[in-house]
Amino acid sequence: MRLISLLVCSLLVSSTLPALAADEKVDLALVNKIRDEGTNRSKIMETLSVLTDEIGPRLTGSPSLKKAGDWSKAQLTEWGLQNAQVVSIAPFGRSWVLEKAAMRMVAPSNLELVAIPKAWTPGTDGVKRGKVVYAKLENDDDLAKWKGKLKGTIVLRDAMTPTKLHTTPDAKRYTDQELHDLEHMDLGGAPARPPTDMAELAKRMAFAKKINPYLTEEGVIATVNVSRGDDGTIFVAGGGSYKQGEPTGPSALVMSTEQYNRVFRLIEKKKDVEVEVEVAVNFGDEDPANSINVFADIPGTDKKDEIVMLGGHLDSWHAGTGATDNAAGVAVAMEAVRLLKAINFKPRRTIRIALWGGEEQGLLGSRDFINKNVAARPESTDPKEKDLPSFMRRPTGPLMLKPLHGKISAYYNLDNGGGKIRGIYAENNAAAKAIFDAWLAPFHDLGAKTATLRKTGSTDHVSFDAVGVPGFQFIQEPMDYFTRTHHSNMDLFDKIQKGDMMQAAMVMANFVAHTANRDELIPRKPMPPEPARPAAR
Amino acid sequence: MRLISLLVCSLLVSSTLPALAADEKVDLALVNKIRDEGTNRSKIMETLSVLTDEIGPRLTGSPSLKKAGDWSKAQLTEWGLQNAQVVSIAPFGRSWVLEKAAMRMVAPSNLELVAIPKAWTPGTDGVKRGKVVYAKLENDDDLAKWKGKLKGTIVLRDAMTPTKLHTTPDAKRYTDQELHDLEHMDLGGAPARPPTDMAELAKRMAFAKKINPYLTEEGVIATVNVSRGDDGTIFVAGGGSYKQGEPTGPSALVMSTEQYNRVFRLIEKKKDVEVEVEVAVNFGDEDPANSINVFADIPGTDKKDEIVMLGGHLDSWHAGTGATDNAAGVAVAMEAVRLLKAINFKPRRTIRIALWGGEEQGLLGSRDFINKNVAARPESTDPKEKDLPSFMRRPTGPLMLKPLHGKISAYYNLDNGGGKIRGIYAENNAAAKAIFDAWLAPFHDLGAKTATLRKTGSTDHVSFDAVGVPGFQFIQEPMDYFTRTHHSNMDLFDKIQKGDMMQAAMVMANFVAHTANRDELIPRKPMPPEPARPAAR
Repeated sequence: MRLISLLVCSLLVSSTLPALAADEKVDLALVNKIRDEGTNRSKIMETLSVLTDEIGPRLTGSPSLKKAGDWSKAQLTEWGLQNAQVVSIAPFGRSWVLEKAAMRMVAPSNLELVAIPKAWTPGTDGVKRGKVVYAKLENDDDLAKWKGKLKGTIVLRDAMTPTKLHTTPDAKRYTDQELHDLEHMDLGGAPARPPTDMAELAKRMAFAKKINPYLTEEGVIATVNVSRGDDGTIFVAGGGSYKQGEPTGPSALVMSTEQYNRVFRLIEKKKDVEVEVEVAVNFGDEDPANSINVFADIPGTDKKDEIVMLGGHLDSWHAGTGATDNAAGVAVAMEAVRLLKAINFKPRRTIRIALWGGEEQGLLGSRDFINKNVAARPESTDPKEKDLPSFMRRPTGPLMLKPLHGKISAYYNLDNGGGKIRGIYAENNAAAKAIFDAWLAPFHDLGAKTATLRKTGSTDHVSFDAVGVPGFQFIQEPMDYFTRTHHSNMDLFDKIQKGDMMQAAMVMANFVAHTANRDELIPRKPMPPEPARPAAR
Repeated sequence: MRLISLLVCSLLVSSTLPALAADEKVDLALVNKIRDEGTNRSKIMETLSVLTDEIGPRLTGSPSLKKAGDWSKAQLTEWGLQNAQVVSIAPFGRSWVLEKAAMRMVAPSNLELVAIPKAWTPGTDGVKRGKVVYAKLENDDDLAKWKGKLKGTIVLRDAMTPTKLHTTPDAKRYTDQELHDLEHMDLGGAPARPPTDMAELAKRMAFAKKINPYLTEEGVIATVNVSRGDDGTIFVAGGGSYKQGEPTGPSALVMSTEQYNRVFRLIEKKKDVEVEVEVAVNFGDEDPANSINVFADIPGTDKKDEIVMLGGHLDSWHAGTGATDNAAGVAVAMEAVRLLKAINFKPRRTIRIALWGGEEQGLLGSRDFINKNVAARPESTDPKEKDLPSFMRRPTGPLMLKPLHGKISAYYNLDNGGGKIRGIYAENNAAAKAIFDAWLAPFHDLGAKTATLRKTGSTDHVSFDAVGVPGFQFIQEPMDYFTRTHHSNMDLFDKIQKGDMMQAAMVMANFVAHTANRDELIPRKPMPPEPARPAAR
């Protein structure tokens, strides 16, 4: 391990000057082979169907994530990849499997409600019936006001949410103009985001911690939030806590918007609304085998100790089958390496596919990989710090680089739904953009043509970029990702378009193969500055 | 009662020549009052909320239709209407109330399925668990093939249904061009629809009658159809039978498309899929009080024995709360008469609001009214004929006109969803169109401006038009009626736009008031020709 300051110099010296697109070599014979295999003998929808229809949702910490890991390890091995392994990222937290969830209004009239439990909230211990109340619980005064009044109730946590008429399409593809705008930046354009008010955030987090014990103590049967979706689409992620020993509160569900609003209006009209609810979950202790990353290699030749990585995240939320988020990314990455094996591609550098766990809980799988193999700061010994989300923790010391840091040429990630690739976010790396422009050229006819210097976040390439290793996420068609499938009960196989997936796998294979075989590593940006170390709290 | 041939002459003589728009009187002082009350003191959303949120779905023959009838009778009386009455349209058939419906996949993994029973199919008599099979049952060979193999199974009745990416908006409003096209007709444009092959239809109906007894005899637990909707929207209407004594078959549900497809793919992959299903229904004998029409009057003055009617249908399907189909039409008609009472309008003719039952089962309520009061053919005494849908029955004799036939100036219906009125279908009545053009003029600014000679069908104005009494349906914005709400679980209050409903009530009030006060009845078209009487089968 070396300190950053030493390594930054060596990296800047060793990397080539930014190549212009025209100078970057493109192996069109290789492109031909990738396009032939990817177009005529694609297996991507079979891969997707196993992950979604057969294995189903793959919540981190749960047996189905292990199952997905075991299956993908075996499949990658069958396709000829080597060193396939499932690596635990424990400690993570508890296993949670939804067994059953039913909610119906039984007074003033019958109505089958579509309501889905939040992950890591408990069951109801059989069928329970209770009066529905709306209780705003946003500060200590609210808690005092409702004290003693919620026993045996089902508590609505949100005000009514108006729905909108869908006069714009749920699903869209980028227009040429939008792609042009994505590539061209107005640096003065967006107002700077105000810095997070850490004191305010800490206050809100402290209050949030009171809610679950309060609801349990008050004897609430279940809580219900309104979904942000409509038309039967329900967006639902986690609640309770996956951390061993933390209070989970009572059963917590998210209900379809229009039904929630109906119940809410009835309560506003002073009608007595009662519901019957039964939630059964299998809430298990931590099993390290259920919190995993999966890796497999196509070993390199003359530069085999350098690696190029690609991947997506294997874990998902539980309401659908995690088709667009992110079986799509996993299947595309798997198909990309299958293509390269099928055409007998011999990479100079080692190609490593990584299927991450724990992405939905904060990029846990990719961070685990980075911490163990690429770069890390010392672990904090302060128990208070451990309780905080990672972005709120004080840096414990300088970033320590590990052997792989200088060896990873780039990591390519796909995690923006089921649409085809329209380009790539070059993450402010102008040298990389010039290279990507060249590699995109033979895929312009399939719609992939834009390399933008813009950054994008919220998925696993960030873990690489954060420690100075080139990590990139592709630009994908928006489709109906944010309107219908992202973290919803509609994140299902049918939402994926076959032609889009085939294209994405070919583009990804092309990027990976060219990264593996170019003379130099992908040029790097300057290392990120060391954060200031605030005084101990 | 007189024979038609006599009356046709008298009608043609008594009606005025078609008025030109410019000649038709428009009472702008009246329009001002209607627009003031309808804009500033609208109660339409309160009416809608009672019908949908409080009373809920209003299936014909079921207690909630009676409840809706009783409530609307009382409300209309409270607003000052007279002679409010609830009139039975029995015999109709059985009462059916959905108490509970839960379906979940329990193997190969757990999944809460969104599946809604078809009306008038039975419950499962507790929780049942069974293997899922896909059985195509479309002819006698299919029945023979599956004989003895379906005991204790849940039968998928449909092949997999591909879903489409929603690249066009679910909801739309008419453009000026579309309204222009709606008003202007190319008579040679649409190819003539081939006449229904009655022999083929009879054959299919005969086969269909075998299915329910077959499924019951084979010991099938439940059948499942795929919904035509997606994203969680499920379209479901009736199954089984509402006719006392007819076989209903086993419980029959409709499942959300993407989930159905997942189950279907698992079966195609030879996975053993099992589901647990529990449906509880309250399937009651006929109660004549549950199959009803509602009427109420604003009595006329100098022409009080002539009437102008307006309405929508009070009955609905059961999966939602029948908000757009057709609490919207009912609420608009109720608001229209409320407006006229609130502004103290004194009509020359009697204004009669009609809220129909049994529309969804074939315009039963409006036909009952027409048969009893306006025009009827003799009842068939052939029991075979009684089994046939009305459009397949042989005419039993000439249409006999009753006293009200010559007294109804027009009937105005609203039953195309929750959107505002853009105009009216003049049903090939050029004389009426000229009048309507004049009445629409003061509502052009609110988007109502198109009177088209086109005909439209599938709702209660047809019952009037079929016997030569002017019956009209308004043109409404398409909104998301056919994509999301029509006969679906999403036909809920939130799908209704307040501004649209307010506008529709004012336009309807305006049409009704002007019809009530013009010197002549609305001109009539020639009587429909007597159908040929085929030889007895």
